[in-house]
Amino acid sequence: MSGRHVLALSGGVGGAKLAAGLAAVLDPADLTIVVNTGDDFEHLGLTICPDIDSVTYALADLNDTVRGWGVKDETWQAMAMLRALGEADWFNLGDRDMGMHLARSWRLRAGETLSGVTARLTRSLGIAHAIVPMSDAPVRTQVGTAEGWLDFQRYFVAEQCRPVATGVRFAGVPGAAPSPAFAAALAREDLAAIVVCPSNPYLSVDPILSVDGVRAALEARRVPLIAVSPLVGGTSLKGPLAKLLGELGRPVSNASIADHYGDLLDHIVIDGADAADAGDLQARGLCVTVAPTVMCDAGDRERLARVALSAARIKAG
Amino acid sequence: MSGRHVLALSGGVGGAKLAAGLAAVLDPADLTIVVNTGDDFEHLGLTICPDIDSVTYALADLNDTVRGWGVKDETWQAMAMLRALGEADWFNLGDRDMGMHLARSWRLRAGETLSGVTARLTRSLGIAHAIVPMSDAPVRTQVGTAEGWLDFQRYFVAEQCRPVATGVRFAGVPGAAPSPAFAAALAREDLAAIVVCPSNPYLSVDPILSVDGVRAALEARRVPLIAVSPLVGGTSLKGPLAKLLGELGRPVSNASIADHYGDLLDHIVIDGADAADAGDLQARGLCVTVAPTVMCDAGDRERLARVALSAARIKAG
Repeated sequence: MSGRHVLALSGGVGGAKLAAGLAAVLDPADLTIVVNTGDDFEHLGLTICPDIDSVTYALADLNDTVRGWGVKDETWQAMAMLRALGEADWFNLGDRDMGMHLARSWRLRAGETLSGVTARLTRSLGIAHAIVPMSDAPVRTQVGTAEGWLDFQRYFVAEQCRPVATGVRFAGVPGAAPSPAFAAALAREDLAAIVVCPSNPYLSVDPILSVDGVRAALEARRVPLIAVSPLVGGTSLKGPLAKLLGELGRPVSNASIADHYGDLLDHIVIDGADAADAGDLQARGLCVTVAPTVMCDAGDRERLARVALSAARIKAG
Repeated sequence: MSGRHVLALSGGVGGAKLAAGLAAVLDPADLTIVVNTGDDFEHLGLTICPDIDSVTYALADLNDTVRGWGVKDETWQAMAMLRALGEADWFNLGDRDMGMHLARSWRLRAGETLSGVTARLTRSLGIAHAIVPMSDAPVRTQVGTAEGWLDFQRYFVAEQCRPVATGVRFAGVPGAAPSPAFAAALAREDLAAIVVCPSNPYLSVDPILSVDGVRAALEARRVPLIAVSPLVGGTSLKGPLAKLLGELGRPVSNASIADHYGDLLDHIVIDGADAADAGDLQARGLCVTVAPTVMCDAGDRERLARVALSAARIKAG
């Protein structure tokens, strides 16, 4: 294999950690990180892109590792004023985070694309690797519930994932083209692997796969697709994945993850706590790597990145 | 005189102090505070109204009395992030202040008028008195310089008032109607006085007077117009008034203030440090009150408010 370019698909916090690990061991020229924008939403006049921000903060070493989301050394003064002014306070906006939302929002309103803004802002933070939205067109994840379709952040933050999910859909597709850098990465001659980060398959990866032409491009590719399972010890580390799998009538297991990606998947990395799943997964014709997938620090992130890359036979730097 | 409603015209910091004093001694039903919006500007996608905010913070007791502007207990985390992101940092936005700009901006963008937004936000902060923009239409003060016309905040903040001013103009007038509450106050049967707060006549009061029909309404009124001079000891306490008077070829004196308001003015309140000006001002047919006009605390503000009201023969509560 002559190529060594890696296309990583990532959602928010968990995916962002592996994305940061990949960035730590790959040259900027060898990595394109495509990020889910289905969680994006408009709030108080701001365009908020939680997953792009999680990846950005993780790569810029600005992420709050204690709270698990947002920017470190964060304060909440603007939010306190917004609350005093009677404005919606169900989505907690930190002050430093707000700087990001403001910068992005005014530039989008001025006509820049989300790709352009993201490139500009990540560069300003000293990030050399490409962080790329899945599409410059708005795609919005919605979760079906007994009360109808809920916008993702309404379901995730305001409702704390309490409603029983009956389905997931993505408003805006078909009709949303891949961002230019995503399309370019898919078409690269030197593309060597696709790494699906440990993100929620339904809520974070499916939106990316739903973008016009992406699933077909992935089906037609000649390079391995490696998914790092977001399950650890038979459940999700955080987020609603385990609850969602149950509600959608699927077992909370790596078999469901493998089923979900189907023929797209060549290789799955599962946690040591789920080593017992390996036989069943191999019986499906998948390559399986069992490795520690919980990422607590930079060392963990890099180790897991190397595991994913070695699954693709890529030698990391 | 049967009426007892007071219409106050205010700019930013100095005017806001007297406006707060008036609010402390008058019932909400008896006071309309009309605020200059010529300083307003669009920045990073936010509509920033510095004078409305100064008056709002003063009446809500949220103003920073040490720094002299903005909100007390302020922090600057969003600004630090904006700077890290390579965004313009010449206008310093505090985090708490940012909450105000965000709330205003998204509601304006959603179609509310500036009057409506201002009423809503001031009520939310517990302000019972009416704080009213001079107009719901954008009027933008510009300062003439050797390099051409500068937008006000560019002149005031970015250039720190350094360029020599050759003139002042207000983009958007004629064509900007008074806000509904301003027009209503001008037409009130029970209007008893107009108080011009100690704000810069050229930069803070003239924009209000330039709004369609306002000067004519003031000329036609039958109630006294009392101006509290912004000069103390022959100069401006803060801001560019003294420099501006010199550049416009006017002496830095209360005579220039009186000249500027001309026939509109009935009564001027001047500081004890300028008591020597009283004779000349009286010789022009003006009533003159000499009183302490420097407002360091709530007591000073209330005392000066009472002085201004007694000039109009209004008994304060």
